[in-house]
Amino acid sequence: ARPRVGYFYSGKKPAQSVTDGMIGMKVGDFQSIPVVVNENVTVYDAICQMFLDDVGTLFVVDQSSFLSGVLSRKDLLRTSLGNSELDKIPVHVIMTRMPNITYCKKQDSLIQVAKRMIDQQIDSLPVISAKEEGLEVVGRITKTNITRAFLSLAEDHEL
Amino acid sequence: ARPRVGYFYSGKKPAQSVTDGMIGMKVGDFQSIPVVVNENVTVYDAICQMFLDDVGTLFVVDQSSFLSGVLSRKDLLRTSLGNSELDKIPVHVIMTRMPNITYCKKQDSLIQVAKRMIDQQIDSLPVISAKEEGLEVVGRITKTNITRAFLSLAEDHEL
Repeated sequence: ARPRVGYFYSGKKPAQSVTDGMIGMKVGDFQSIPVVVNENVTVYDAICQMFLDDVGTLFVVDQSSFLSGVLSRKDLLRTSLGNSELDKIPVHVIMTRMPNITYCKKQDSLIQVAKRMIDQQIDSLPVISAKEEGLEVVGRITKTNITRAFLSLAEDHEL
Repeated sequence: ARPRVGYFYSGKKPAQSVTDGMIGMKVGDFQSIPVVVNENVTVYDAICQMFLDDVGTLFVVDQSSFLSGVLSRKDLLRTSLGNSELDKIPVHVIMTRMPNITYCKKQDSLIQVAKRMIDQQIDSLPVISAKEEGLEVVGRITKTNITRAFLSLAEDHEL
């Protein structure tokens, strides 16, 4: 993940840096691009969006483009089960709303965020930037990003 | 994750063991209990099972209880979209089938399995035990397990 400029040989780095590497891991270094939908979009369109972008979670924003909710595959599957009017229900009816959303910031420690994902059984967290008027969604952290971080530890040390 | 019997003081372990710890991580040490359904179960019942057990992937077994397919939340959501006969379609019609299933074994290295999950964009792998007649499903590895492994590195070294 990090540029390797300045290394003149390919050898294992000292083990100490695995530990240092983990402590230094920040959300911003591993986050993905967020996929957002407006809160008036229908459940049907949200499901299509989820497939188009191949993500497990959509972030919902209000008219001012600030975070207002989260939609998981689980939420959409639950709603689609035995409901034939998916093109008539707006997502704000079924989404998890603020303030019940766990989010994080770019500069947060990846270890702490991973811990929160396990403790609260969350698959995906929005990475936000707090503005006066609301929360701007700037990224997405999933267990895929954590898995990548885990692998980068192994790769950096050629395990 | 490991018992701490025999430690008489609470101090950081040497950094070298983070590296050793990662190399030594096996699937069997981090796997979860698999949730399996029979291939003749309906899509509707499979979705209910998925919610009951709160998993993202179901493993499908044949009449002899050997692995025959995999069902993800994505597969079920795709099928449920615009389909009102979910209680009439058996899961074997929509599942990913052998030999297109990536699986692993208890003694496999967790690093290698994590790499496969990222490279092949897989959320969950069955852990199998190979018998003469087929593959017995003995566990499940997801990115949640990898996230737990990542955290256990931090916890063992009190990062």
